[in-house]
This record gives sequence, structure tokens and C-alpha cells, in this order.
Amino acid sequence: MKTKILLKEADMPTHWYNVMADMPNPPAPPLGPDGNPVTPDALGAIFPQALIEQEMSPERWIPIPEEVREVLRLWRPSPLYRARRLEQALGTPARIYYKNEAVSPAGSHKPNTAVAQAYYNKQAGIKRLTTETGAGQWGSSLALAGQLFGLEVEVYMVKVSYHQKPYRRSMMQTWGANVFASPSDRTNAGRSILEQHPDSEGSLGIAISEAVELAAQRDDTNYALGSVLNHVLLHQTVIGEEAKKQLEMVGDYPDMVFAPCGGGSNFGGIAFPFFADKAAGKEVQLVAVEPTSCPTLTKGVYAYDFGDAIGLTPLLKMYTLGHDFMPPGIHAGGLRYHGDSALVSQLHYEGLVDAVAVPQLETFEAGVLFARSEGIIPAPESTHAIAAVIREANRCTESGESRTLLFNLSGHGHFDMSAYDRYFAGELKNFDYPEEAIRESLAHLPKLKFDMES
Amino acid sequence: MKTKILLKEADMPTHWYNVMADMPNPPAPPLGPDGNPVTPDALGAIFPQALIEQEMSPERWIPIPEEVREVLRLWRPSPLYRARRLEQALGTPARIYYKNEAVSPAGSHKPNTAVAQAYYNKQAGIKRLTTETGAGQWGSSLALAGQLFGLEVEVYMVKVSYHQKPYRRSMMQTWGANVFASPSDRTNAGRSILEQHPDSEGSLGIAISEAVELAAQRDDTNYALGSVLNHVLLHQTVIGEEAKKQLEMVGDYPDMVFAPCGGGSNFGGIAFPFFADKAAGKEVQLVAVEPTSCPTLTKGVYAYDFGDAIGLTPLLKMYTLGHDFMPPGIHAGGLRYHGDSALVSQLHYEGLVDAVAVPQLETFEAGVLFARSEGIIPAPESTHAIAAVIREANRCTESGESRTLLFNLSGHGHFDMSAYDRYFAGELKNFDYPEEAIRESLAHLPKLKFDMES
Repeated sequence: MKTKILLKEADMPTHWYNVMADMPNPPAPPLGPDGNPVTPDALGAIFPQALIEQEMSPERWIPIPEEVREVLRLWRPSPLYRARRLEQALGTPARIYYKNEAVSPAGSHKPNTAVAQAYYNKQAGIKRLTTETGAGQWGSSLALAGQLFGLEVEVYMVKVSYHQKPYRRSMMQTWGANVFASPSDRTNAGRSILEQHPDSEGSLGIAISEAVELAAQRDDTNYALGSVLNHVLLHQTVIGEEAKKQLEMVGDYPDMVFAPCGGGSNFGGIAFPFFADKAAGKEVQLVAVEPTSCPTLTKGVYAYDFGDAIGLTPLLKMYTLGHDFMPPGIHAGGLRYHGDSALVSQLHYEGLVDAVAVPQLETFEAGVLFARSEGIIPAPESTHAIAAVIREANRCTESGESRTLLFNLSGHGHFDMSAYDRYFAGELKNFDYPEEAIRESLAHLPKLKFDMES
Repeated sequence: MKTKILLKEADMPTHWYNVMADMPNPPAPPLGPDGNPVTPDALGAIFPQALIEQEMSPERWIPIPEEVREVLRLWRPSPLYRARRLEQALGTPARIYYKNEAVSPAGSHKPNTAVAQAYYNKQAGIKRLTTETGAGQWGSSLALAGQLFGLEVEVYMVKVSYHQKPYRRSMMQTWGANVFASPSDRTNAGRSILEQHPDSEGSLGIAISEAVELAAQRDDTNYALGSVLNHVLLHQTVIGEEAKKQLEMVGDYPDMVFAPCGGGSNFGGIAFPFFADKAAGKEVQLVAVEPTSCPTLTKGVYAYDFGDAIGLTPLLKMYTLGHDFMPPGIHAGGLRYHGDSALVSQLHYEGLVDAVAVPQLETFEAGVLFARSEGIIPAPESTHAIAAVIREANRCTESGESRTLLFNLSGHGHFDMSAYDRYFAGELKNFDYPEEAIRESLAHLPKLKFDMES
């Protein structure tokens, strides 16, 4: 009775799967401030050519460079687990599997794309990458990848996290990155914020502005993003590709695939390779799981909006709560994003991807049950997928169905123990659905939206 | 070119290797306060029969119960890595391999024995286990194991660590353990300390006293220890057994095997299965690595001494710095132990196991180089083995020898980032060899020693 289903190193995917090749309609293009599609040239100031091509490629399969595969082999292929102890704890006839992406050195799926992005930038002669980070999952992944390819990495870390989560910062420094509390005095954006608000605790939006400003200014410096964009989701498809092979090894196939969904790279990573089968007629349900307090897919609108909080990026057609929506302070920091991947959004709009929202307390309850049955302490983001799987497993118990459920365990909770502490102390709560705040931020959608859709 | 060498689940060891069967001389028995060997009956108050038998067994191979193997399969077999990137960073002709025990849910090798101990106690009808913990590696491993077998776990955590390292405590609570700051008011030992020293910050010795007192008092409660004892080292031999098979798969065999050595379970776990070959005439060097500030094997005496700081336990014949020796505050908490496993000690005394001591700064330098080349951030204990391997690899570079070096990466450093922080800030130092303190504590060795050896 197998617990872990392991692939050989030789079975690691050789190509990324590009979902754009199988979407029923062409993806809506990103638009510039003038309302026209953004040109590859315009993106060249902060991204290398290879990634811009991937962002727009119609090819179904894109080869993974051997240099990237060599680094991924440090932890990939990642194990697929049959969650027998969780099934037993639930008393469910459902078969539950999870892909364990917590095995990467940074502790999540994020290095899958960080490594690819570092590689292509190195190839393009770039010396330095800038990025932003909130709680630090993405910043630490890029720090690791930059170190392995000999690139300098500058991370602009939201000031409140910089001081409250010192251990993710230490992790980035251990991998050689320079980490700055944002707003910093190193950029015009940072300095202007500090002049107006000397005590600013920062935000992801400000940190993005700082990182992008520096990348645009310097020829030897590019910018790297950890989710949302097409090429980022592309790099994560190794997760789903491996999971498919692993399920094949035990003669199973999922009825439903679940993943947490913030910017979409976690979800796209595991779900898109199964979408390829769905597009070919196979029955499989793909479920993006989000917090009820930041319900982008379940309560947002499908419209062109900015990717950042301030309005510096191109406009992406996506489900959004409005770019200036400030989500309540839940502990799943990676899911506190106003928008979503354009690809995930379009597939959801077309009815090909489902979405469900779960409240914070249910996610922690699910995380603790998972830790106590399967052993691994999950990241607060991952507990969202677990909670949705438990709902479905309990439904199977009632109906007597033996369905196959697969989810992405996107990361471990080793740097989130203070959140578990607060949960045990009864200090966490479910936030009310922020209806008023969402109505207000949706009123600030760029006018373009109405031009486009009218 | 393989990076990870993986075994199938089916190749997980079916038996533990008992080094006592191959030692040239019978192991020196533990002695009671009267100077006579401790009887199995006396140990029965706090240990189940099966573990007492393992403590004294002459059998070379002891079967691992299927129920234990089933839990170990959650993370075992653990991967063996060829450290190609570290080799490259060092420019060494040496081939470096490491066994990655950081993949367990608790993040170290400790669950290998915690699971076995929980199983045998459950079988014996025990309802509750007590134990002590310092920084929390052992306590969290026993919490996990107790949870998986439905046993209550009470952990007495040294008070200063309870407050300074809240995240290991949260981890234990997530796995359902009750964690008490020691000294507590729950035991006579704790209360008497608190009466005399209301502000006591605790010590491992006091925490052991509390855990043992409760286990001895209650029929449904036993005590569990995370290192030092023979049965604990026995349970860790899965590490070395797997490593041997994995090296066989790539046609290699180590010239030298390294592991950090505090109480000895880390070292015994990887080294003993290779000792079996050494006893059969094969050339292989086994190297225990310890801190220069707590140099038990390299500077201690081989004598009967107490296992705890206060003098409650039976006397073990071991290398010791004196049971009341208080090691300097290095960050490798797991290596701050005055004594050592009786088995490791006897083999060292007989010239069959080597020992080397490394200073704190060299271990952190090694840990950072490892993190920057191999990706994984090692625990401060594990960096001791890395430092010793780097010394040998550099020697190979000078001599041009292509030797095969194997070490145990016993754990990750996710809960030790504050130590890395202090290292980067230049706040860590090498402690002077504590010659005076050791001379003083050695003067307090139990008198028995002289009776026995004269």
C-alpha cells in the first residue's frame, strides 16, 4: 500500500505545458495606458526576450532548458501522496491525493518559476533582478534562484512584514539577497511616499513600484514577478504534469483538482495540465479556492484593471475586486490579491474553471486536521485547498461516492507558526464579506473597462 | 547525472541494525546508585518492555514493526544527494554525498525513534508519554509521533526556550501536545526549584527530572528520551542502512562518514551500519563532529557519569565533561550535552570511531556555503558535519585525492534563522575552550568511577 508516489529524476517533465494552445478563445491581451495592446518592445525594459515570448506564445509545449531542469532536480520531481490518514480521519470513501510542493528549499512551489526566470535573465546578460515581496515566500524563492545562477537579487519587502517576519528576511539574506524595507530611500517612488508619510508601513503596491522603477532605470537590471503573468503560470505546470504521471502509476485519475488561488500560479500549475485533458473531452473539474475575505473569482467582476495597487502596470483582463481594494488581514498573505491571472480568469469566465471561497477559521481547522493526520504542517495558503477538499470528501461520505480528489500542497507552514498560535489562542476570526469596500474599489476601475465592454 | 538518489518505498529497511552484535567487547552496563548493573525491572517504571529488551539485545537485526514502517513511509526512504554544487564551489576532487533527514515533518532525524517509541508504548497499553525538550526538536518529534498513535504527549520545555523559541512550541501544540514551561508547578521537582529560585529559567536537567517524576508516578504514563540510549540509536540506523543501498545504486562507497554528535543518535544512525562493514574488515572511517565549546569526545574523560545534570538517572560509562558542566550558549542546542551515547563512547575509546571538534564561526560559514550551493538551509547542528566535510574536501584538493565523503544532514534550519541573523550581524563568536569549567565539573564525577576503575 503505497503512501508516496515517486517519479524518477529521468521522468521529470522536459516541456512546460502552455494552456493558451488549448483555450477555446484567444487570451485577452494586456493593454497599455492608451488602450492599445502592449507591445513586446515595451516589456523589454524589464523582462528578457525569452520570457516575453513565453508570455504570448501559441505553442502547446515549450522546452525546459537543461540548465533549469538541473536546478529543479535539487527537489523535483516532488512526491505525490495518497492521504490515507486524512481519509481515515474523515471516514470518507473519497480517495485524496496531494502533490507536495513544500519540499523545495524555499518551502513552496514558487522556486519553479524563480529558477526559470533567473536562468533566462542570466542568459540575456542581466546582472541583477529586483522584486517585491510581502510575507517573503516569493522573495526567498527568487533569492535562492538568483544565488544558484550568480545573479544579484534586490528584494523590496513591505516594511511591516520586514519587521514582523524577520525569519523570511534572514532566509533571503542567507541566500545572498539584499533585502530593503519598502518604502525605502533608494527610489523616487519610495522617497516620495516617505516624504508624505514618514511612518508608512508600506504595501505590496509601493514595493512593486520601487522594484519596477529600479529595473526600468538600469540596463543590467530586470524585474521578476512571482505570479499572475502567463509565463509564471507556464513554469508552474511541471506540478500538474508530474501529478498526472504519478496518478497514472497507480491507475487513478482525479474527478476534481483543487488549489489555492491568489495570483493564480499555484492553481494554474497543478490544474492546467488537466485542462489539456478537459479540452480534449475528458471529465475533470478544476476548482480554484480563495478566501471569503478576498473573493476575487467568486465576487469580483471580469474587467480590465491594473495589476498593482497604484496603477503603474499594463491593464490585464481579469476578475478583480478593484486595484485599490485592501483585503482584510488574513494570515494567508499569498491570497490577499485584488486580481487574478488573466488565463485563470478567462477560463473561469468561460465556465471551464470553478471557484469556491472558504472563511479563515475553516481553513485553520482543516490545516490542523491535516497536520495531525498527515504530519506535515501546511502553509495558510495551502489550507484553503485542504478545506475545500474536506468539504467535498464529506459530501462523498454522505452520498457514498468514491471520487478521486487531488490538491496542491503548495507550501509548509514553518514560517507561519505565529498564525497557528493565534488560531489556538482563539484570536483569529472570520472576516465579514467586505461588500462595502469592494463596491468602493470597483468604482475606481479604469474607465477603459467601460470603453472596451460597451 | 543524478542529483538525488532515491529508494522505492519497498526498499525501506525491514530491520534495525544493532551495533552491539558487532562490537569487539560487550557494552559496559548502566549502573544503579549502588554500583550494580541496573535490572530491566528497574527500568520498567518508565519504559515499555520491548524497548528495555532492545536496550540490551545481543541480536544483530531487530525487525521493524509494520505499524512503524507505515508511519516512517510518510517521509522515508529519505533522499541521498550527491552535493555536486558544493563540490564545484569548493573545487574539490572529493565526491560528497549527504543523506537528507530534514524531509521529516518535524524537520530532522528525531521522528525515526519517536515513532518507534510511541508505537511500543501504545502496544504496552500506555496512554501518555512525558519528555523534556530544549530548543524543541525532540519535543516536536515526539508530539508528532504521539499524535499519529493516539497517545497524549506532555513536553517539559526549558523555560528560557519556551519563551524565546515560541514556534517550536506552536509546532508541538499543532500536533496536539501539552507543552509546559519547566520548572513548572506540576511536579515536586519543579515546585522545589521554584520555591528556591522563583525566577529560574530552567535547564534540561530540571526538565528531565519533571518528565521522569511524572512517568514514574503514573501507571498509564511512560517517559521517552530522544538520544543517548542504545534503543534510540538503534531506531536511527535506518539512516545508514538506506544510505548504503543508495550508494550501492551509484556504485560508490564512503571513505569517511561524518555526523554531528551530541547525545549520539544522529551519528550512530548514519555510522553504525557502516561499522558493520568495518567490523568485517572493510576500510571506512567514522567521524563524530562536535563543537569545540562542548568537546565531549575530544576533551572529556571516559568514565561512569549521570545522564542528567542533577544525578537522577542510572550511571552510563561514557565520555563526559562532568554531569554539571554547563556548555557555552552556542546555537547548536542539540550538541550542548555533557555526555555521549555509551555505544559511541566505547567505540571511540577502542579507536574505532574518530572525533573532531569545530568552532562555531566555522560551522556557520560552512552552513552558509552549503545553503548557497545546495539550496537547503541546514540546522546549526548539521553545519558541524558540513564544516568537517569541507575540511576534508579541501585536504583532498591539496592532495589531489578523490575520496568519497558521506554526511548526515540531520535537519533544516527553518526554526534557527535568528542564529543565522546573528551570524550575519557579526554577533556570534567562537567560545574559548572552557578548560576551567570542565576541570571543575570533572571533579564532581560520581565517586563510583574511581571505585570501578581502580
